[in-house]
Amino acid sequence: MYFASDNTSGIPATIMDAMVRANHGYASGYGTDALMDKVRARIRTLFEAPEAEVLLVTTGTAANALALATVCPPWGAVYCHTLAHIEVDECGAPEFYTGGAKLVQVSGTEGKINPDALADTLTRAGRGVVHNVQPGCLSLTNLTECGTCYSLAEIHALTDIACAHGLPVHLDGARFANALVAEGCTPADMTWRAGVDILSLGGTKNGCIGVEALVIFDPARAWEMQLRRKRAGHLWSKHRFLSAQMAAWLEDDLWLDLARHANAMAARLEAGLQGRLMFTRGGNMLFATLPRATHEALQKAEAQYFLWPDHQNDADSVSVRLVTSWCTTEAEIDSFLAIVGQA
Amino acid sequence: MYFASDNTSGIPATIMDAMVRANHGYASGYGTDALMDKVRARIRTLFEAPEAEVLLVTTGTAANALALATVCPPWGAVYCHTLAHIEVDECGAPEFYTGGAKLVQVSGTEGKINPDALADTLTRAGRGVVHNVQPGCLSLTNLTECGTCYSLAEIHALTDIACAHGLPVHLDGARFANALVAEGCTPADMTWRAGVDILSLGGTKNGCIGVEALVIFDPARAWEMQLRRKRAGHLWSKHRFLSAQMAAWLEDDLWLDLARHANAMAARLEAGLQGRLMFTRGGNMLFATLPRATHEALQKAEAQYFLWPDHQNDADSVSVRLVTSWCTTEAEIDSFLAIVGQA
Amino acid sequence: MYFASDNTSGIPATIMDAMVRANHGYASGYGTDALMDKVRARIRTLFEAPEAEVLLVTTGTAANALALATVCPPWGAVYCHTLAHIEVDECGAPEFYTGGAKLVQVSGTEGKINPDALADTLTRAGRGVVHNVQPGCLSLTNLTECGTCYSLAEIHALTDIACAHGLPVHLDGARFANALVAEGCTPADMTWRAGVDILSLGGTKNGCIGVEALVIFDPARAWEMQLRRKRAGHLWSKHRFLSAQMAAWLEDDLWLDLARHANAMAARLEAGLQGRLMFTRGGNMLFATLPRATHEALQKAEAQYFLWPDHQNDADSVSVRLVTSWCTTEAEIDSFLAIVGQA
Amino acid sequence: MYFASDNTSGIPATIMDAMVRANHGYASGYGTDALMDKVRARIRTLFEAPEAEVLLVTTGTAANALALATVCPPWGAVYCHTLAHIEVDECGAPEFYTGGAKLVQVSGTEGKINPDALADTLTRAGRGVVHNVQPGCLSLTNLTECGTCYSLAEIHALTDIACAHGLPVHLDGARFANALVAEGCTPADMTWRAGVDILSLGGTKNGCIGVEALVIFDPARAWEMQLRRKRAGHLWSKHRFLSAQMAAWLEDDLWLDLARHANAMAARLEAGLQGRLMFTRGGNMLFATLPRATHEALQKAEAQYFLWPDHQNDADSVSVRLVTSWCTTEAEIDSFLAIVGQA
Repeated sequence: MYFASDNTSGIPATIMDAMVRANHGYASGYGTDALMDKVRARIRTLFEAPEAEVLLVTTGTAANALALATVCPPWGAVYCHTLAHIEVDECGAPEFYTGGAKLVQVSGTEGKINPDALADTLTRAGRGVVHNVQPGCLSLTNLTECGTCYSLAEIHALTDIACAHGLPVHLDGARFANALVAEGCTPADMTWRAGVDILSLGGTKNGCIGVEALVIFDPARAWEMQLRRKRAGHLWSKHRFLSAQMAAWLEDDLWLDLARHANAMAARLEAGLQGRLMFTRGGNMLFATLPRATHEALQKAEAQYFLWPDHQNDADSVSVRLVTSWCTTEAEIDSFLAIVGQA
Repeated sequence: MYFASDNTSGIPATIMDAMVRANHGYASGYGTDALMDKVRARIRTLFEAPEAEVLLVTTGTAANALALATVCPPWGAVYCHTLAHIEVDECGAPEFYTGGAKLVQVSGTEGKINPDALADTLTRAGRGVVHNVQPGCLSLTNLTECGTCYSLAEIHALTDIACAHGLPVHLDGARFANALVAEGCTPADMTWRAGVDILSLGGTKNGCIGVEALVIFDPARAWEMQLRRKRAGHLWSKHRFLSAQMAAWLEDDLWLDLARHANAMAARLEAGLQGRLMFTRGGNMLFATLPRATHEALQKAEAQYFLWPDHQNDADSVSVRLVTSWCTTEAEIDSFLAIVGQA
Repeated sequence: MYFASDNTSGIPATIMDAMVRANHGYASGYGTDALMDKVRARIRTLFEAPEAEVLLVTTGTAANALALATVCPPWGAVYCHTLAHIEVDECGAPEFYTGGAKLVQVSGTEGKINPDALADTLTRAGRGVVHNVQPGCLSLTNLTECGTCYSLAEIHALTDIACAHGLPVHLDGARFANALVAEGCTPADMTWRAGVDILSLGGTKNGCIGVEALVIFDPARAWEMQLRRKRAGHLWSKHRFLSAQMAAWLEDDLWLDLARHANAMAARLEAGLQGRLMFTRGGNMLFATLPRATHEALQKAEAQYFLWPDHQNDADSVSVRLVTSWCTTEAEIDSFLAIVGQA
Repeated sequence: MYFASDNTSGIPATIMDAMVRANHGYASGYGTDALMDKVRARIRTLFEAPEAEVLLVTTGTAANALALATVCPPWGAVYCHTLAHIEVDECGAPEFYTGGAKLVQVSGTEGKINPDALADTLTRAGRGVVHNVQPGCLSLTNLTECGTCYSLAEIHALTDIACAHGLPVHLDGARFANALVAEGCTPADMTWRAGVDILSLGGTKNGCIGVEALVIFDPARAWEMQLRRKRAGHLWSKHRFLSAQMAAWLEDDLWLDLARHANAMAARLEAGLQGRLMFTRGGNMLFATLPRATHEALQKAEAQYFLWPDHQNDADSVSVRLVTSWCTTEAEIDSFLAIVGQA
């Protein structure tokens, strides 16, 4: 019963096999390996974006911070949700990479930015006033930190506002695959067709060892991003071992299959937690309020999960975050639910 | 005949096996995995440094830049050799991570800092003068960028000067293992006993997929370094896959065996290139001047190596850099030397 | 009727005379002038702080940003009020100078940080969690941006919390003199005795041409601050002209007299605006809600002031910010109030 | 006998009078004062550059660092002379403002960059190689740090190379006026017509209290530069007092008259030091080698100057830097030379 995070899982045999296969002979380094050509081509096809540039890095924080630094100047404001990973969980990486940009929190229920709140914030932003940080970019996250999923319409509603204010849009897609299969749309629909300029496409949480693809739809900025990656120490010499993971993950839609499985496991969990969910489940992550006794019984059974947010807990109940992954089993779910049912 | 770099090699089966074994069940993330405990303990034992803190990152550039940022303030000068990797090959990563420190080049033959030049530079450095960047730290590299190896005495000569000026010392050990076996001393001898405060211990060039250990002998700065690592996007969630590489690499002295092999292959190459070497070979890298006709014959045979430095080449001769690795074979060497002999 | 800001005023003749007197012969530069010795001694006496270090810069933004960079690391959080000048009006200077620290807004009525909100924020701050920005420092402003004045008890309530969490405290004293005479306490009472570690002591808004004193009560950090000042281009060569202003401003309590005058003028304004004030007036700045017709009559009479905040205005009423200064006259106030009375 | 620096002088009465006149009534702040309009118009006329944008700051270091940050990216190389003020005397301000660009020293005699050395450096610079810092900009200084003056032809020789490599050109004109009158050309000739894109026009060393004009010939970058200035704390609220100095300095060619006087005094000094000069005098600064006995006699007479560079001095002789200013008198020169003649 391991629901602490989707990044505590290992990786599917398919991907490990690809690593083993890649470990053959010499390969040119720093992103010039043949497997990377395959990855690039595959992503361009998948995203229907023949001009897109693709760069691999190993963590979501690196992907997000590099993306933001590429589209937002040091004096820019990055508009993001109050709970966004870039705001809460990256120890200031966006500020470091951008050279001191300011993250401006925009509120909204269920972890989604409220369009009116965004419009209002932008209206008051002081564009053209030298004393104020200038509007820099919009950063969305799908799945959100609350485990909800922006619909295409919801994304458009936000990117339309960004566009009207001349702002580029970044999408933190640490769980992009989970959102994609939940929404049932194409990668293009959820990105450039919806006004997204740059995507952090997360592999790590969905079955890879440690690889994220930065996908930038405007190739004019790709060279700058390459320099930023190198300068940040994120350009691998034995790059083939990043390419191998990503290539295997994308091949035969493995990435979507893994996400579908994780989502299905979360749906099974949801079904057993009716009436206890804090937010609308969008993919492979859900938040529930449990009686404290249930929590204690689960702890005793060594179920793994985080209290979230920990400050809302009281004597009678606790809020928990439950994340499923590509390797979660029905048995794990059922064991968990059995305890919930008994308590 | 692949002598372009030691980072174009793959990895030994032992290390890949360790990756496969690590891919089992769930593991807690972000450096709290059990394998990391093993790595830390192993490095402390190997370095006879029970208080040392160890952090893993995936590239040498990241390791160096994080180390420098931890020991040198933004207004500090990093003294390094004119040809140092941090100066030449990291696209300004040290400047980025330190917040704008200045790399001050110190000259010296064979890629080694000349002690008199260092002492002279420090004497003129303007310590206490507010207009001048202040002495920050000394950064050495062993093996050097010229493939030479600092002896312990040579290291002491430099760290004594640094110490007299109150400067911490960083050692870029991208090829530390090669230097260690060349010099035949212990890890402690070449680091803290020789006045080194922080080490970038390179695994990638010597058989790992992508992992370097930052070893800091003063644990007081470890927490800052952890925050800097996270903030730079270099803290892995599925950290066990870094630990696994490093643990396997260090186990049963594999790292030293790999380095010994690489050095031996370079020695074989050296033996066949008598009279052509540009610098004293220290480990697994050598530079030679070849007749242009030889170079052309080698190219025709698809030998891989870099011209180095490319601007010194003329109609008659070329300078080349040849790097051997853990997987270089005697056959490769002999084929190469056969062509050299014929031309 | 010029109430737009206290920095649209000129300077008293006394201070200009000091500039003229300072323009005599040669003087050593970069803060080593004899007048600076006088300033330093005077501030140490006034603040009963014989060890304090004093540095002059020319803008409040520079003073604040240098202070914050000196006490808060790049991965630190600066806790400040939602409306703080450092958050709203400095175009990201604190982020730039600190190397990317994060400003964390804490709410509270009347422009004052609510102690419970601060305690709550700090409790949740994630100290020791590597994913989170770490608590860095507390930054207060007195007078606040709402023109209110923290009492000593209110300052203590906040600095006690900061102290309990091990945080240094910065005081943005752009209008410190106005707060001091309003509160009727000594400089020491409102700073180090109240737990303040570093002060931006503002001269510009209160009668100087452009000079602010950074007063740091722990001299251990003074050298770092000097280097930061130089590196930021804020160390003047003809420094005597900064010293001269500051010396004259402090001499014979001129600074307090100027502040008392400004506060008295604001009190006169307040008396005529009974029932219209938005916040409790603390010194020389007040906010009032006026009927739109009154606003139009004032505009016609060329009264100068800012609408504040501009988005709360509607068809019937407007919110305005009125700032008095050392040179505001009773006649200006009375003219203004006459129009208010008529409309 | 005060030859330590041109920034130990005070200011001409004309400029102080302008300060006094500016101290009248209220004035709008932050660069929107009427005097600034006058300054802008005057500089545009003087430089025959109707589109140029002009920003005032208070120190040469700030002007240089802002200029470099505006034209050079964080991963850029700033090519400058080994002795350049930006390299030696600004405590890393360029690195701070640019976000970590690298200053690359180019050698040349008499403080002037050697065109062949520049061309060679640029040829080897690794443009397009992701591991290398990328060519960013060229920074010249006129007068140079050796007191020599680049001729227009010499400037063109360097800017032509920069242009061929697509690099913008910055001119550190801390002593621009001295160079201009020495060369006898127009401001346009020495700047944009000679390939200069951005100029730090120094007022402080030539008679102002503390003001430098950033002149940028491509207005497209002016807004970014304004934001950078604010963000660095260099935007003055009581800006009229910067404008007033600059307006008075430029009026009726006062700036040129002051520079002519300083140059003439240096010429008088040179005439008395025949055979002792280390470099060709270009303006108001010269370097001479004096017998130690002469030096001691001068010290006894309280002559003020710096030993420069201090490490080249020996038992018999010393190298000294002598700087004249707008207020140096013939009597000072003659007293100095009298001692030199006697010793």
